[in-house]
Amino acid sequence: MTLKLYGYWRSSAAFRVRIALNLKGIDWENIPVNIAPGKDEHTGEDHRARNPQMRVPVLEGGEGMLSQSMAILEWLEAQYPEPSILPSNAWERAQCRAFANIIACDIHPLNNLSVLRLLKQDFQADQAAISDWYAHWIKTGFAACEAIASTRADAFLFGHAPTMAEILLVPQMWNARRFDVDLTAFPRLKDIEARCMQHEAFAHAAPENQPDAVA
Amino acid sequence: MTLKLYGYWRSSAAFRVRIALNLKGIDWENIPVNIAPGKDEHTGEDHRARNPQMRVPVLEGGEGMLSQSMAILEWLEAQYPEPSILPSNAWERAQCRAFANIIACDIHPLNNLSVLRLLKQDFQADQAAISDWYAHWIKTGFAACEAIASTRADAFLFGHAPTMAEILLVPQMWNARRFDVDLTAFPRLKDIEARCMQHEAFAHAAPENQPDAVA
Repeated sequence: MTLKLYGYWRSSAAFRVRIALNLKGIDWENIPVNIAPGKDEHTGEDHRARNPQMRVPVLEGGEGMLSQSMAILEWLEAQYPEPSILPSNAWERAQCRAFANIIACDIHPLNNLSVLRLLKQDFQADQAAISDWYAHWIKTGFAACEAIASTRADAFLFGHAPTMAEILLVPQMWNARRFDVDLTAFPRLKDIEARCMQHEAFAHAAPENQPDAVA
Repeated sequence: MTLKLYGYWRSSAAFRVRIALNLKGIDWENIPVNIAPGKDEHTGEDHRARNPQMRVPVLEGGEGMLSQSMAILEWLEAQYPEPSILPSNAWERAQCRAFANIIACDIHPLNNLSVLRLLKQDFQADQAAISDWYAHWIKTGFAACEAIASTRADAFLFGHAPTMAEILLVPQMWNARRFDVDLTAFPRLKDIEARCMQHEAFAHAAPENQPDAVA
C-alpha cells in the first residue's frame, strides 16, 4: 500500500516527514488538509477520526494512522532502514536525536499557529509582539544548535549525509525566513541548510513546491 | 562508570529520566543543578559546558554529555534494553512514541519556566493569566491523550508494563496537580497514573523524594 501523508504545505512538521519520505525514496501520496484559519479542516470529523489531537501531519500506512512527526520519522527509519536518517554509532545517534529535539521541543511548539492565536486572543498581542516572540524562541534554540554545529566539521551535521538533524533544521530555517528572523548569528546552520537545499529530497519537500501551496 | 544525571527535583524532563533509570534498574548518581529563579545554576559556566542549551536534564555517560530527555530515553533503551520501555511490536512502538510526543512537544514546552517568565515580562501576564495558559495546554493535550487511552484496555497504556508513554504522562500529571488543573475529564489518565505510582521506579523518581527538594 502506498503511504498517505495528510499534511499542509506550510506545516513544518509535515515538511519534516516529506523530506524523510523523499530521502528514503518511498512512494507516497500527498493529501492536503487545509489548516488555514477559516478553513480549519483539521478540526472536522474526517480529520478527527484520523487523529484525536486534530493536527497534521498524519501518516496512513502500517496498521492505520500515525501522528506526531517525530514518531513518524522513527517508524519510517525502522521500516525503511536504507538510507538511514540516523548515524550508525549509538552515541552519535543519541546526539543527533538531541539536536533534533532542540527544534522539535524547544523551538517549534512555541511558534505553532495555536500558540500565536492564544497570544493574540488572551494577551492582546499585536503583530510586532508576535514577531518578537517568534524570533525569541528561534534565536534561543538556534544559539544552542549553532554551538553544537560549530564543533562538527563534516559536510552535514552528523557525517556525510543528512540525518534527522537536518530534517528538523531545514523546515525551522524556512519558518525563520518566513518571519524575517535575523539569521546572521548562525552561519554554520545556514551553510548546512544551503547544502541540504541542493538535495532533491529537500527541494521537492519545500512548502512552495506542494500542490496546496498558496502564493 | 556510574551514570550521572544533572537534574532538578521539579523539572519534569528530569523526572522522566529518573523513572527510566529506575525502571531499568540502572545505577545512577543524582547531581542537582538549581534552576530556581535567583539561583540559575543552569546558566553558569559549569552547566553551559555540559549543555550549550543551558537546560536540565543532562546525562553523563556513554562518551560524554547527552541532553534532551527524549534523546536520553532512546539512548537508555538502546544501551539497557531490558526491561524495555517500548512495546515490542513496531506499530505499537510508533503509537507509544506518538503518545509520548503529545506531551513532550505539545504540552510541556508551552509550560516551561522560560515561557512563563516571558509571558510575565513581555505580556504583563498576572498569576491568573499564567494559570489559565498553563491549564489550557494541559487540557488540550490531555484531551487527545485521554481519547487514545480510552481505546486501550490493558493495565498500562501499551500493555502490561509501563512504557515511554507513562514515563511522559506521570510527570505531566504531577505538573497539572501542582498548578491545580482540573483533571476530572481524564479518568483513564488518572487511573494509569495511580497504577504507576504504586511502582517503586515511579515513586522513587517523584520530585518530593529528591535530595534537592524544597518544601
